[in-house]
Amino acid sequence: MTALPIAITLGDPAGIGPEIIAKAFRDAPDQTRGCFVVGDVAALRRACAAVQGDTGVSLPVAEIEQPDDAWQTPPRCVPVLQVLARVDLPPIGRVSAQAGRMAGDCVVWAARAALRGQIAALVTAPLHKQALAAAGPPYDAFAGHTELLQAECAAFLNRPMRDVPVRMMLANDELRVVLLSIHLPLAAAIAQVTEDNIVQTLRIAHQSLATALNRVPRIAVAGLNPHAGEGGLLGREEIDIIAPAIARARAEGINAQGPFAPDTIFMRARRGEFDVVAAMYHDQGLIPVKYLGVERGVNVTLGLPLVRTSPDHGTAFDIAGSGQADPASLLAAIGMAQVR
Amino acid sequence: MTALPIAITLGDPAGIGPEIIAKAFRDAPDQTRGCFVVGDVAALRRACAAVQGDTGVSLPVAEIEQPDDAWQTPPRCVPVLQVLARVDLPPIGRVSAQAGRMAGDCVVWAARAALRGQIAALVTAPLHKQALAAAGPPYDAFAGHTELLQAECAAFLNRPMRDVPVRMMLANDELRVVLLSIHLPLAAAIAQVTEDNIVQTLRIAHQSLATALNRVPRIAVAGLNPHAGEGGLLGREEIDIIAPAIARARAEGINAQGPFAPDTIFMRARRGEFDVVAAMYHDQGLIPVKYLGVERGVNVTLGLPLVRTSPDHGTAFDIAGSGQADPASLLAAIGMAQVR
Repeated sequence: MTALPIAITLGDPAGIGPEIIAKAFRDAPDQTRGCFVVGDVAALRRACAAVQGDTGVSLPVAEIEQPDDAWQTPPRCVPVLQVLARVDLPPIGRVSAQAGRMAGDCVVWAARAALRGQIAALVTAPLHKQALAAAGPPYDAFAGHTELLQAECAAFLNRPMRDVPVRMMLANDELRVVLLSIHLPLAAAIAQVTEDNIVQTLRIAHQSLATALNRVPRIAVAGLNPHAGEGGLLGREEIDIIAPAIARARAEGINAQGPFAPDTIFMRARRGEFDVVAAMYHDQGLIPVKYLGVERGVNVTLGLPLVRTSPDHGTAFDIAGSGQADPASLLAAIGMAQVR
Repeated sequence: MTALPIAITLGDPAGIGPEIIAKAFRDAPDQTRGCFVVGDVAALRRACAAVQGDTGVSLPVAEIEQPDDAWQTPPRCVPVLQVLARVDLPPIGRVSAQAGRMAGDCVVWAARAALRGQIAALVTAPLHKQALAAAGPPYDAFAGHTELLQAECAAFLNRPMRDVPVRMMLANDELRVVLLSIHLPLAAAIAQVTEDNIVQTLRIAHQSLATALNRVPRIAVAGLNPHAGEGGLLGREEIDIIAPAIARARAEGINAQGPFAPDTIFMRARRGEFDVVAAMYHDQGLIPVKYLGVERGVNVTLGLPLVRTSPDHGTAFDIAGSGQADPASLLAAIGMAQVR
């Protein structure tokens, strides 16, 4: 078997990450073939026990020696590469520095494996931001997965982090959106609608999707204001900022069109008119992606020299350990990593 | 037959209004039973001819003497009450003062008929804002249908217009949203997120839906910022403004809940958890309502002492006269007027 395996990082072991991983291997043996867990055997054994609770069928964990061994693991068995020191597990459902460090160490290991060409992609199970911060240096410098991966890639490329710009893409099976900004108050997000930010977003989306789709992607650019400003009557950002940015991107050979009225462009993209919509702020893009169900959403980090996807939900401490967590979004993230 | 009939106003006779009305009577004889057109026989005859083009089946127009005659009109025949002076028709597809005045006169007639209890509801076919403005006094004082109806209701109630506050509700068969503000630049819409505006919106939504649903409606209030501000990290409007407004509304017996993360609350309401979502700005509410298709959306004006619904599209001068226009949204608006 020559294809590279796909690494699934453990996530915060106090959250639902290990459980959704266990369920994914149990429920989708074909789709998880060639995948393995970057993590800890004991954490996966605990998750398998929680998941068995609802079926009575035992789910074995197979410790593997190297990523390629993932291809040899029998179906409905969870291959785990032990990259962490073997320690007592942190308790389920609680923020802890130990759990944060375990989650962070797995991500760093997987990022480096991807950068040295040992794995095809990484799919990251959710970590808990407070636990990551509690883990102390170096992890307390990073807000989450994205920044941590950005730092690893910057170090690998020998560039400052600001020269490895990334954008978040959210996707389900009928719509992709790329976001100009993410976790900012809405008023501050409006201030991020600049010509340079839009051009950079369009470049990153173009490059990533051209590779994934193997053709020039059709990018729709949403307006910021109702009716895309209606010729300046309802705001001038479309005229002063967004249209000039689109013109600059088009001059570089990017097939960007717009700005389009925000309230109909996602429906048009969903029907196949465009491959991706560039959204001007977090909720503009996330409301339509999540409208038909969060369990189908996948988060893809664009701009990095590696492929990273993740489920579009958090650690769900409130249900961790109960075996209830739904692996659908993780499976969608694995599927997206496989086609890229 | 004791039920009151439903009036469908002509709309701008240069636009697609008369054609979608003709198609609605042709395609949905059961649903349009008890409906009649407030307008002009010649304009409807012209529309019926345009619509016949694509079928070869002729569609007769029946001039009626009074609203109640609508119940006696045979199926697949368009009942028209001639409320306008009979004049040469304005040309199709062009803005004209004459067309604007015809559209406005029909709306005023229907509003007064509703207020005097002669009709159950009015369904307004689209008018063209520039044509309405070109019609001169009194129409040039009104931005569109909503303001015109507000003025008629204020006069009827003998109150100033500001004391007849209205809100726009958009609805399809699975989601209702009520908007805090409509046609404003996004930055200006943020400034409209005030405690009083939210409380007034919740009162209007509560009252209108309590009547329509015959029970206390469950109202979800969306946040303004990503993740509804995440406890103040991503914006303070939820803490400082939205939560206190919800508390005030609840103290009045309104079942308002939230503020909820904007990116998942519409999905939750769609699945039946709430009857309506109060959206903090135009696109927050309209993106999800339109996501599954604009042809299913209906616009309902809340807060007036009459029932008014309308299709969620404009006059479409570019295709007017061609017989191509889709009556789906008008039929949805008729359906919504019937259940209210």
